[in-house]
Amino acid sequence: MALSHPRAAPPDRAHLGTALEAVRERAPLVQCLTNTVVGGWTANVLLAAGAAPAMVSSPEEAGSFAGVADAVLINTGTLQRTTATAMEAAVAGAAAQVPWVLDPVGVGGAGLAWRTEVAGDLLARSAPVIIRGNPSEILALAGGPGGGRGPESGNAPEEAVPAAGRLAREHGSVVAVSGAVDHITDGQRLVRVDNGHRWLTKVTGGGCALGALMAAYAATVDDPVLAAVAATATYTVAAEQAAATAAGPGSFAVALLDALDGMTAQRLTARAVLS
Amino acid sequence: MALSHPRAAPPDRAHLGTALEAVRERAPLVQCLTNTVVGGWTANVLLAAGAAPAMVSSPEEAGSFAGVADAVLINTGTLQRTTATAMEAAVAGAAAQVPWVLDPVGVGGAGLAWRTEVAGDLLARSAPVIIRGNPSEILALAGGPGGGRGPESGNAPEEAVPAAGRLAREHGSVVAVSGAVDHITDGQRLVRVDNGHRWLTKVTGGGCALGALMAAYAATVDDPVLAAVAATATYTVAAEQAAATAAGPGSFAVALLDALDGMTAQRLTARAVLS
Amino acid sequence: MALSHPRAAPPDRAHLGTALEAVRERAPLVQCLTNTVVGGWTANVLLAAGAAPAMVSSPEEAGSFAGVADAVLINTGTLQRTTATAMEAAVAGAAAQVPWVLDPVGVGGAGLAWRTEVAGDLLARSAPVIIRGNPSEILALAGGPGGGRGPESGNAPEEAVPAAGRLAREHGSVVAVSGAVDHITDGQRLVRVDNGHRWLTKVTGGGCALGALMAAYAATVDDPVLAAVAATATYTVAAEQAAATAAGPGSFAVALLDALDGMTAQRLTARAVLS
Repeated sequence: MALSHPRAAPPDRAHLGTALEAVRERAPLVQCLTNTVVGGWTANVLLAAGAAPAMVSSPEEAGSFAGVADAVLINTGTLQRTTATAMEAAVAGAAAQVPWVLDPVGVGGAGLAWRTEVAGDLLARSAPVIIRGNPSEILALAGGPGGGRGPESGNAPEEAVPAAGRLAREHGSVVAVSGAVDHITDGQRLVRVDNGHRWLTKVTGGGCALGALMAAYAATVDDPVLAAVAATATYTVAAEQAAATAAGPGSFAVALLDALDGMTAQRLTARAVLS
Repeated sequence: MALSHPRAAPPDRAHLGTALEAVRERAPLVQCLTNTVVGGWTANVLLAAGAAPAMVSSPEEAGSFAGVADAVLINTGTLQRTTATAMEAAVAGAAAQVPWVLDPVGVGGAGLAWRTEVAGDLLARSAPVIIRGNPSEILALAGGPGGGRGPESGNAPEEAVPAAGRLAREHGSVVAVSGAVDHITDGQRLVRVDNGHRWLTKVTGGGCALGALMAAYAATVDDPVLAAVAATATYTVAAEQAAATAAGPGSFAVALLDALDGMTAQRLTARAVLS
Repeated sequence: MALSHPRAAPPDRAHLGTALEAVRERAPLVQCLTNTVVGGWTANVLLAAGAAPAMVSSPEEAGSFAGVADAVLINTGTLQRTTATAMEAAVAGAAAQVPWVLDPVGVGGAGLAWRTEVAGDLLARSAPVIIRGNPSEILALAGGPGGGRGPESGNAPEEAVPAAGRLAREHGSVVAVSGAVDHITDGQRLVRVDNGHRWLTKVTGGGCALGALMAAYAATVDDPVLAAVAATATYTVAAEQAAATAAGPGSFAVALLDALDGMTAQRLTARAVLS
């Protein structure tokens, strides 16, 4: 079922549409251990994109369920002791078979030392297929100073690209740095996606749901660079379409779900701006 | 205040409107111990239907609050140890006086043994007035093989009807099997509700909120078959109305709340398709 | 950065617009320890109003993060033992430097003795800058009988004004009593805000998000009476604008976010009804 793609070549736009359709056909089961604020939005984004969300986040079930899921998302927003324990179990349960995505919300931020430690422990246990964060989070995860304000970044994506490359090479992961232009790298290739809309920063979970979408694509597409790029393009091209008809961030979020549901391979390929 | 209805007769469509208006008049207080992903959506559905949601789910308060609530909903999605303890307390607090509804999300699914055990324990303690699930969950609860993928069903509703009947007779509960056509049985009568829209499966909590609505109707209507049928018809007729104006699952969810709020006894009676 | 305002004078409408713009300019970081049902809605309201939400609610981080946040919101809906511990830590971490707002959801209600005790303990440790509740909650917090049904009030705002005044003087807090007309007092001044729409009671978290907005304004505006009044006016004037185009509570909630995002100082000043 997995979509094959030559790993040496940078993804071109024609592959985006193929990835979109492959996700819809497979409907990957994505286990989300994510924060309580964005759970509903994340699940609705996955459903609109054709994936099947399952929010299994207890220590009792997270490990066994990870073994049957198609991908696992771990997001450190609203982290609690029990969810941290469940995340360890999920990473162990996923083992080498099931790809998992790390979204280190708030890592490196002032007053957030505990989650920074938890995220580091998870990374030391097993390599995520994709790490998605804002520039401050990626800088912090790579051992730099970080410096976000809660879930917000204090840095531009470009500033975090060298750190993203180091982080990618260290763990064998793809690292996606979110921002006005998204930067995605495996430590060798670097792909920029220049789509999106500022209202994505006005919808809570605007970035978190993208992490979940990357998990859905990583379950389906062989090349994790293509998975991260295609998920980002799907989401941000839909965001542009939604913004064109919306009157503000409320109607934008609603229209974004509609646009994701109605996205076609043709539109995605035509509108994605990769470099 | 409770609406009287002859229990021997199958509900006819005229009773649906009476039930709708009775719920609006009483505004039953529905205690929800439900999953964190769908809490907001569930509360908004209850409010739009005229009920009063109260998400009291701590071990410290779930039992005492169940004694003053008009109905209790227990939903096993995102189950944690503390909420499982709270569910035991709520079922005990509800005792024989307050009707409770069981929505066994994920029960019987691969990797979800713990919640399957918790749901079985709750059922052994006290009989719910209504059990609402997808076909896989009902099959599993009745002792069959189940086989859902997380919250999704691997079976058609028709396949689960014999198991639903056995489950209903065993516990003295009404069992509602969700699907393209909803099947509701008390082990003797079987009522099908053939309304709804496929976008309900694209809104997270699309089914969970129906479980909460059944609790609101069960608090108000004497006959639990009528309660389950009227709640299902109210929700799915509103879904059809919402789909007629929506552009996708995002705008559908918004329009569904509007349609529930504006539902009339006349429209409900005219559009419900029962058999 | 804080907006200066003479504390002796009642706020006039011209100050509302200045407060709105000051919040947008500062983008205060509001730490929310709030209930799981309304977290997404609360964060989206804060974002639409120009503030930066951060839902940090673990015992491990709540205290350290409160020291770097601009304001803290504590809301007792869906209280659990771990969040109660986190709330104690947050109040201690906020100390005298960071203003915190108490939203005592459900306090005094039947079957909800535990949260009533927790809220009383928090109040005894440190004075919130603002206490926002419905009339029943304020009556209960002031030592009266209360009498809400879960999150709903059994009393009109006017009935709770004397208790609100006593509570305000006892703790040196501003007390905001929500209702058809909002009543805000510091125990000496009393300001009424006569804006809003009944659909606010049909959106879960309709009141909870206002508590979060008050925290954002209290972080920015020196006078807490002005902060509470300006937050209330911003939210309820936006609600009126949203209701004018909405078809029901679903589209109302969406339009409310749009209206908050697009609110201008001029519109706010022109439409707010203060007495």
